[in-house]
Amino acid sequence: MQTTIPYGKYLKQTAQRAPLVHCITNFVTVNDCANMILACGARPVMAHQEGEAEDITEGSQSLLLNMGTVSQVESMILAGRRSNRLGHPVILDPVGVGASRLRRETFQRLCGEIHPDVIRGNVSEIRYIATGHSDAAGVDVCGAEQITEENAGEVAAMAKALSRKMDCVIAVSGPLDVVAYRERAVLLRGGHPLMARVTGTGCMSAALMGAFLGASPEERFEAAAAAAGMMKVCGTLAYAKTAKAEGGTMTFRLQLIDTASLLSPERLEEQVREEVLS
Amino acid sequence: MQTTIPYGKYLKQTAQRAPLVHCITNFVTVNDCANMILACGARPVMAHQEGEAEDITEGSQSLLLNMGTVSQVESMILAGRRSNRLGHPVILDPVGVGASRLRRETFQRLCGEIHPDVIRGNVSEIRYIATGHSDAAGVDVCGAEQITEENAGEVAAMAKALSRKMDCVIAVSGPLDVVAYRERAVLLRGGHPLMARVTGTGCMSAALMGAFLGASPEERFEAAAAAAGMMKVCGTLAYAKTAKAEGGTMTFRLQLIDTASLLSPERLEEQVREEVLS
Amino acid sequence: MQTTIPYGKYLKQTAQRAPLVHCITNFVTVNDCANMILACGARPVMAHQEGEAEDITEGSQSLLLNMGTVSQVESMILAGRRSNRLGHPVILDPVGVGASRLRRETFQRLCGEIHPDVIRGNVSEIRYIATGHSDAAGVDVCGAEQITEENAGEVAAMAKALSRKMDCVIAVSGPLDVVAYRERAVLLRGGHPLMARVTGTGCMSAALMGAFLGASPEERFEAAAAAAGMMKVCGTLAYAKTAKAEGGTMTFRLQLIDTASLLSPERLEEQVREEVLS
Repeated sequence: MQTTIPYGKYLKQTAQRAPLVHCITNFVTVNDCANMILACGARPVMAHQEGEAEDITEGSQSLLLNMGTVSQVESMILAGRRSNRLGHPVILDPVGVGASRLRRETFQRLCGEIHPDVIRGNVSEIRYIATGHSDAAGVDVCGAEQITEENAGEVAAMAKALSRKMDCVIAVSGPLDVVAYRERAVLLRGGHPLMARVTGTGCMSAALMGAFLGASPEERFEAAAAAAGMMKVCGTLAYAKTAKAEGGTMTFRLQLIDTASLLSPERLEEQVREEVLS
Repeated sequence: MQTTIPYGKYLKQTAQRAPLVHCITNFVTVNDCANMILACGARPVMAHQEGEAEDITEGSQSLLLNMGTVSQVESMILAGRRSNRLGHPVILDPVGVGASRLRRETFQRLCGEIHPDVIRGNVSEIRYIATGHSDAAGVDVCGAEQITEENAGEVAAMAKALSRKMDCVIAVSGPLDVVAYRERAVLLRGGHPLMARVTGTGCMSAALMGAFLGASPEERFEAAAAAAGMMKVCGTLAYAKTAKAEGGTMTFRLQLIDTASLLSPERLEEQVREEVLS
Repeated sequence: MQTTIPYGKYLKQTAQRAPLVHCITNFVTVNDCANMILACGARPVMAHQEGEAEDITEGSQSLLLNMGTVSQVESMILAGRRSNRLGHPVILDPVGVGASRLRRETFQRLCGEIHPDVIRGNVSEIRYIATGHSDAAGVDVCGAEQITEENAGEVAAMAKALSRKMDCVIAVSGPLDVVAYRERAVLLRGGHPLMARVTGTGCMSAALMGAFLGASPEERFEAAAAAAGMMKVCGTLAYAKTAKAEGGTMTFRLQLIDTASLLSPERLEEQVREEVLS
């Protein structure tokens, strides 16, 4: 479709430049994140020890910090500061930020010490960061808060305001995705409800952002939106294959990464469903 | 088939109530456990830090403690005590309990500090807990100890006695499953030997119990038996699909969780093979 | 094909003897390693705590040490020393050894404290160990260093020299594999470039070595070569199935372990492509 962002270009650059993405992430979905990064043509390095955090960041092109198990916070800070100094894009995934005091304080501490270039979360996480409260329990979205066609404008306004406040791209994932930077915002349609029935789809989306921004560090908003758009397209196509095979959630998970590994820039461009929210 | 427990009802309640299952588990099979919990309609939260163990438990409906890598024991105790106070079901999976002094002592310590509502293990693990010795090495069952049609009565008697002693449900997994509570015991047939050729099937069974008991905390014996029965049915159906596809162990693993995500309460009810052991 | 090593024999012995393989490995690919060990008929025990490292090693037949996340180094040393004393084969996978000072020092320390029987790495890792430098970043091979038909002789000479110096089998994985022990070396062809687009194929290869050497501890060179040969054959066959299914990287990963679980000793023998490098 006609889009304002050249989605395919960012996938193409990722495959061509094969950036090294330093990931400090949770042990629940770490394998999925590594495979998703490989699927789009980038290279993951999962290095979470304090003693090497700076060395590894030095040799990488971007940094992914995922708070899923609230571990390795010191390593995140060391790698994050170094990435900031080097000008490497830093993607922060504040998993379940509202779910415990530890997560709230960890998020505060991370944002006090380092500057994230992208914060990606579900709507409950982003709402918590923007407003200091949310109705979610655990790491999932509170149903009543979920992004819908009705509240997308309100979510976009919240994301833009938060983006200005924190000077970073805000990416909200859900049944609809919103990616915002200051006065700009795009809405991305697609994906499939099965994405919420598989662990790690949010983490994989952030991993794709790590890959895309590692390849295109000068265009952070566009690259983040392209990664979000790719995840949506993969969800849609993966569901079609899953349905045809009469498969369940694990078939869907396999197809999600499989599709990413087979997706051409042209197909991404053609399938992505973007709407500009002014 | 005609059963004494309404197996389908517990799956139905799990899908309807979508309980949040707090899991403190090993890093080997954590992803499989999360996906199995999602497959049956519940919601996993893998939160293993001491600093948030109580907060997360507070917002959850049940607690799964898996000793697979003997880590996060302090978190297990904090979350376990809090769950006990809240009346949340606690499922304990004493992986490889007889395999090392550390595991034996950890198990003793856990059971000294918290009251598990279900202990699920293979026959070597349960035998070790019941008798203080076992012939197993590592985390697998010693072949000579495995449950068979011949010794099932003896295993059930052991499980019942242990259940009375510890005042909790005892679930024994293997080629046959036995689930016992005080004077009651059911034998569940089905599954497939390939379940032992894939890592994590025991962990997944305990994860299903976490989900089912989270949804039906008042009926712990029945809900645990229903989860064990569901695992058996998934094993049987997954093998049929694997054989048809001429697949190997990874196809089987995928089918196991896939089947769980597609299984209806009616199909579970119809496929489960229960025998009451009096 | 006609080979100098009876490849099938080592797979057969692994399935018959079902050795217990003690693994202290990284959390990124731990599940894949466990499933690969199960696929070839051996039994994994992933036990990484210091407090049980020696107990577990005592009951096992071989030890796999994987430096992927540079963690549990004390456990590695305890288990490694005990394995050395017991005469259990020790397989060391020095993941990303040249990528950070921490990895370099950890490798030095491990090799100062324990004697590995096999070191398996990609060409950049082995080159780093042999020469003290390498051009790789992260945990991947530097493209310019990759094994090719042209430089295979040079790589084999390097591996033999390193083998003599360290008195252990040196296994180099890549588009071509070289396995060397003192004056002997074999080149193994096969596999598929997709193996580099999936995380953990190197780890899985080392895991197979743990299984094969656990079953055949007297023939370390042959067993290591057989494991490397099996990985190549699995890669080739898995790609054929993936291509037929028009699958991507995750289908390939599933097929890799699936194929291992279905491979007969005869088929391995027939498919392996060995060349002796004199």
